[in-house]
Amino acid sequence: MLNWEKIFATRSSRMKASDIRELLKLLDRPDIISFAGGIPDPALFPDQEFKAAYADIFSSAAVNSALQYSVSEGYAPLREWIAGEMGKLGVPCGLDNVFIVSGSQQGLDYLGKLFLSPKDTALVTWPTYLGALQAFNAYEPNYDQLTPGGNRTPEAHRQTAAEAGGQVKFAYLSADFANPTGETVHRAEREKLIDLVDELDIALIEDAAYQSLRYDGEAIPPILALEIERKGNIDDTRTIYCGSFSKTLAPGLRVGFIVANAPVIRKLVLMKQAADLHSSTINQMAIAHVASRGFDAQVAKIKKAYSYRRDCMLAALEKYMPKGTSWTKPEGGMFIWVTLPKGMDGADLLAKAIATKKVAFVPGRAFHADGTGENTFRMSFSCANDKMIDEGIARLGALIAEEMPKA
Amino acid sequence: MLNWEKIFATRSSRMKASDIRELLKLLDRPDIISFAGGIPDPALFPDQEFKAAYADIFSSAAVNSALQYSVSEGYAPLREWIAGEMGKLGVPCGLDNVFIVSGSQQGLDYLGKLFLSPKDTALVTWPTYLGALQAFNAYEPNYDQLTPGGNRTPEAHRQTAAEAGGQVKFAYLSADFANPTGETVHRAEREKLIDLVDELDIALIEDAAYQSLRYDGEAIPPILALEIERKGNIDDTRTIYCGSFSKTLAPGLRVGFIVANAPVIRKLVLMKQAADLHSSTINQMAIAHVASRGFDAQVAKIKKAYSYRRDCMLAALEKYMPKGTSWTKPEGGMFIWVTLPKGMDGADLLAKAIATKKVAFVPGRAFHADGTGENTFRMSFSCANDKMIDEGIARLGALIAEEMPKA
Repeated sequence: MLNWEKIFATRSSRMKASDIRELLKLLDRPDIISFAGGIPDPALFPDQEFKAAYADIFSSAAVNSALQYSVSEGYAPLREWIAGEMGKLGVPCGLDNVFIVSGSQQGLDYLGKLFLSPKDTALVTWPTYLGALQAFNAYEPNYDQLTPGGNRTPEAHRQTAAEAGGQVKFAYLSADFANPTGETVHRAEREKLIDLVDELDIALIEDAAYQSLRYDGEAIPPILALEIERKGNIDDTRTIYCGSFSKTLAPGLRVGFIVANAPVIRKLVLMKQAADLHSSTINQMAIAHVASRGFDAQVAKIKKAYSYRRDCMLAALEKYMPKGTSWTKPEGGMFIWVTLPKGMDGADLLAKAIATKKVAFVPGRAFHADGTGENTFRMSFSCANDKMIDEGIARLGALIAEEMPKA
Repeated sequence: MLNWEKIFATRSSRMKASDIRELLKLLDRPDIISFAGGIPDPALFPDQEFKAAYADIFSSAAVNSALQYSVSEGYAPLREWIAGEMGKLGVPCGLDNVFIVSGSQQGLDYLGKLFLSPKDTALVTWPTYLGALQAFNAYEPNYDQLTPGGNRTPEAHRQTAAEAGGQVKFAYLSADFANPTGETVHRAEREKLIDLVDELDIALIEDAAYQSLRYDGEAIPPILALEIERKGNIDDTRTIYCGSFSKTLAPGLRVGFIVANAPVIRKLVLMKQAADLHSSTINQMAIAHVASRGFDAQVAKIKKAYSYRRDCMLAALEKYMPKGTSWTKPEGGMFIWVTLPKGMDGADLLAKAIATKKVAFVPGRAFHADGTGENTFRMSFSCANDKMIDEGIARLGALIAEEMPKA
């Protein structure tokens, strides 16, 4: 029998099962209060709107196009709608700047594929989105710590990259309500990031998956908008903006998008043509149908629901968490990030939380490219109701108090 | 402004615009008779069946799952249906052997990603499916000529691979009615291919995109079935079977599949989780709905239509092609492959055919990994009616006669 490991590509050694995936299986156990997921609440899906969208497609002359092959760059009316929305965010752009992908996760995979040769360096925050690390890992990069507003110099990044045997290719981050921390990168930090990538002469990948979900505080322009302000034109920018419909409309259709300068978009279109031809035609049409008729109303609906759940979770944390723990206070998104006292381990805590308290969350280590973060964990409030949140955090707070190192 | 080429990965230099893609644009010009495409005829799509499928999904409790994230291996009822069909083809298998991809093109991309490190060798026929070369190119392989039933020894392949700086990782071919030739690999040749990959200790990728579309002649078991006959169990085989719904049901949903041994499937599932999470949930459900209710009837319908068109095209070729040209006589699929006299060039002929005769096809060189094949071209009969075929081939035959080297 074939020893498959012998003929797999070297990159395959970095494709490993994820903690999150294993944990998602727990969601099906009704006796567990799970804050692990981070998926949208299906009760908030615009299912009637999608029902009407598919019905309309099948009742119109568009049906043959909907079922047929289509162009790799994506369905033009959807790209037009996205270009219009980006204009409202301070990103004036044309159809040549918009590219449809099969969910923004695919955008991250394609960007890793486009930029990373083995041993090249990607700058990411500690912690960062686990899915980004998984997507980039296939291209065998080195990681170096991105510190928005922090003190690491371009020279330090260059040196780290050279020591790893390659060059710095891009900085990746989520600027609004990031997965996993829920935190936002402030405007001054965004400006400094543009300075950094300009000095390093690299790309900046702005993951905007949660950007529409701001519950309070003042909106900050996307990094791409700030860079256009400086440079005058999207085609002169180096920020690559990755957008998603998964958190606002529905993830099951697998439709996301990239907005960037035309040279990068052209290369991504060629890549997609070779990799999967195009994203589902009918689903792009359905997203365009629903988005153009009621995107703002749908976003208002989910913001109302999620902001209430965030408030509940923050109140419960205040009420039940023992001294020595701390947590983020997100202005949007789906996540709160908890830091335990030094010496405690989120993975150990999870094992005990499931076994003795029937509560689940995601330990923080997997989100750290350097393997640190053992005393952290992520909780999502997106699928929990107020009673579950109060009860779950009460149990968790009690467990942490029991497990805390005695002073 | 950033010089993007400077920071793109080395692999990006092999991502180039394709002839086929540029040619597809011609399909929209109503004055051109195009045999270039090779896409299914939308008039044959089971649109009423899909309409019912989406309507049923939105009228049932499944709607929330349809719009939600789902598992990377694919929708279980669809995988069950596929496992049942594979059993009928002589491939007994379980759910662990079936993996859903976003079109079989994505399957080829993932298999390139799984096996090919730069400088490794992939064995492909001259000519082969252009989309396979494009998918594999991203992983920077060398190509060596696969000659089913031919005289190249394992030792010769090993030596070519070593000279290129890597090792042979897999053989890729389409065994039934291949794109672009329409030809079939006979049973004895399939058996020899299994010998070859056994001796080389490599994988065999069997692209079965057209397998369901046999119009006459006796069906030959898939290579995977022949290998299971020898080895007793799918988990002991090295053939990786790539299937598609694009030619039988509809390509616009982007749903295809891979059937193979469990170790390879497990690795592909991890790869997909990192690359795009999963294929569209709702589309997998719709395909399962339509396939389980009427796959055989749909296949019978399209076989009837396409076999008539194949007959028309073969008759027209017989009637209009000048002496010195030859062509394949496919038992199925969508394509006929024409060979011109030595010295003639398919690309030159296309330019003249469009300009002076308003006829289009695909020149053969792009299908050859070694850049040969200049005196060949591909024609598809899938979207043409009998009058168009007679008229188009008459014009083309006249042009070739004009252009032929004088004896």
